[in-house]
This record gives sequence, C-alpha cells and structure tokens, in this order.
Amino acid sequence: MAETNALPLVLLTEQFARLPGIGMKSAQRLAYHVMTMSEGEAREFANAIVNVHKTVHLCSCCQNYTDKELCPVCADPRRDHSTICVVESPKDITAFERTKEYKGVYHVLHGLISPIDGVTPDSLKIKELLARIGKGGISEVIMATNPTVEGEATAMYVSKLLKPLGVKVTRLAFGLPIGGILEYADEITLFKALENRNEI
Amino acid sequence: MAETNALPLVLLTEQFARLPGIGMKSAQRLAYHVMTMSEGEAREFANAIVNVHKTVHLCSCCQNYTDKELCPVCADPRRDHSTICVVESPKDITAFERTKEYKGVYHVLHGLISPIDGVTPDSLKIKELLARIGKGGISEVIMATNPTVEGEATAMYVSKLLKPLGVKVTRLAFGLPIGGILEYADEITLFKALENRNEI
Repeated sequence: MAETNALPLVLLTEQFARLPGIGMKSAQRLAYHVMTMSEGEAREFANAIVNVHKTVHLCSCCQNYTDKELCPVCADPRRDHSTICVVESPKDITAFERTKEYKGVYHVLHGLISPIDGVTPDSLKIKELLARIGKGGISEVIMATNPTVEGEATAMYVSKLLKPLGVKVTRLAFGLPIGGILEYADEITLFKALENRNEI
Repeated sequence: MAETNALPLVLLTEQFARLPGIGMKSAQRLAYHVMTMSEGEAREFANAIVNVHKTVHLCSCCQNYTDKELCPVCADPRRDHSTICVVESPKDITAFERTKEYKGVYHVLHGLISPIDGVTPDSLKIKELLARIGKGGISEVIMATNPTVEGEATAMYVSKLLKPLGVKVTRLAFGLPIGGILEYADEITLFKALENRNEI
C-alpha cells in the first residue's frame, strides 16, 4: 500500500501504537482524533505527558508515584504505619484503595523477579523495603504480588529476606473469587480454595 | 476513595480518557506506562502530538490531511484524476487504499450532515468539492459515505448539488459482506442485497 498519510501523522500513529493494548488501527484512530483537537487541546495533552516526567517521582518512603516528598498514603497520620502491603506496581495501590478496607501503608517493588526478562532482585525496590523495616516500628508485611510464577517467586524471595528481621510476613489468600462459579474455576484455584479451607 | 495518585498523573489519565474508545482504567494504564518511558521517549511522544498540528493541514485539492501542498494521491500523476470518491473522513481513504483497486482520487467532507449534532452542510467541505468539479475534467463522483442515516442523507444532498453540473454521480453498492453468513445478515442488508441483485 502506498502511504497516503502525512509523515507526522504516521509518526504519531507509531507513538500511540507503542502504548500497551493499542493496535495499529486504534493508533490511527487516536492520531486522527488528535488532528480534530484544537491546537490548545493538543498542547495541553502534550504538556501533560512531559509534566508527569518533570514533576512525578517516587515517594521517598513507599516508592509510589508522587509529586511531593511523600505520597498521600505515607503522609496520612490516620493510616496504620506498622503494616506494609508490598505490591508490584502503583496501579495495584489503586486497586487496594478501592476496597476502602485497607488502613495500612504500601511498598511498591516496581516489578517482579523474572530472570527471563532480565529483572533481578537488584533492580526492584527491595533494598528500600529492608531499610524501611530496619528503622523499626513495622509489625506486619503483607506480600500482595500477583498469584503468578513471578509473583510467587518474588513473594518467597522477599519474605525470606524479611523473616530474619523478626517481622510477621503474610501472603494474600487465594481461592474462589466472590461471585465466581465453582464449575468454571481452574484446577489450581480450586486446589488453593480446598487447601486453604476455613472452619465455619 | 481518597485520591492516592499524584496530580500530574491524574491530569494525564484524564487526557487519555478523553480519547475515543479509552475508558478510565485504560487511561490509567496508559498514564502509568508514560511514567515507565524514558524522559526522551516521553518528549518524543509529546512532540509528535504537537507536530501534527504544526505541520499537518488539509490538502488544497481533496482536503485529506497532508504536510505538503498536495496529498500523495492528488500529487500522483498515475491516478485517474477524473474520478472522485467522496468520503466522510481521512481514515476512509486508508480503507479504500487497502483494497489496492481504486485508481481515482478522493474528496474528504470531514463529517456528515447531522442537524442533531449541529453539523450543517456549510460546515462540511462541500463548497470545495463543487469548486473542484466547476474547474472541469471530472467524469464521475462516487458517493462513498457510510450506509447510515447521516451517510445516506449526505450522499443524497451532495448528489442533488452535483447533478446540475452534468457529472455522473454513483453510490457504493450495498449488500451481503463477502464471507458473511446469510442467516446472520440483518434485514436491511438482506433487503438491499435482494433489491440490488445482478444477473449471473
């Protein structure tokens, strides 16, 4: 196909197509949409992209994204600062906050150990977690990584480092999802649900 | 939910959520993805957005997007410049070019007549089409708007303006899509397929 699009539009389409979950057709639709924006709107969009890099950095305590010294959770005196929930990425914090039940604080690892992708423990925010616990005052660390191979491996690796520090380390419960149907549950989930059964 | 995200991240999420087909969850994922880009990559992305507005404008002949005086189709002497395919938007041109069969040129209306959305014929590139045909040398105009209420109305409106100019006006054929199953065709498509049947 002869390229009938203007080069800057092709370049913008390629930029959109690099984003996760955006294919070439969606990317083209988005690029065309940018053309229909006013110049001011396009500039605002472009500024928003550059601005997150300029102003957003990691919270000095929990490594979540923030534009202040401490993120809102770490800066909140009403939170329970003795309980740390360890997650893979900042978006997991949003998920936990949606439950409105968790009152503790977080620690973001920014990845999971995955030798196949070249992610070693050194490239994660594990040192920062150890330093934080070393300061004292932490009673429990909840390993809240995903129930995947990498998530399990990371939870095991981190918990082994934490145990000698005398801190209680827990793992999220795995079992049937609420509202799920037993018939459609995969065998590993069902096995976990059976294994972790509770007396009623 | 207490907002745990940094304000610049929230603003970027809102920018992404304004794009067509991107919901709040996807927008957040995209905003987080921008944070994982290098600063250079983010700047390149932002520049691509601003650049399309700076350098891309409408082709002086067919109103397609281009960064030159004429778009590649209008500038190509091997195309049949006596046949104009009238489309709603530039992305329709990409669709026609994919067929590799159409050798004529295009004219982009940049919308369809839709009084309910405040789109009147004046806001479309109809004057430009009439001026182009007024210059002579056009033998056929193919109305290639979508088979929707607005697409049909626009095709009818434009064709009524063109008929007095003595130019042949045609409309795309509507019928069963190739590879489609008769059983699942909607009644209007099936009626059109029946109405426009051809001798074999």
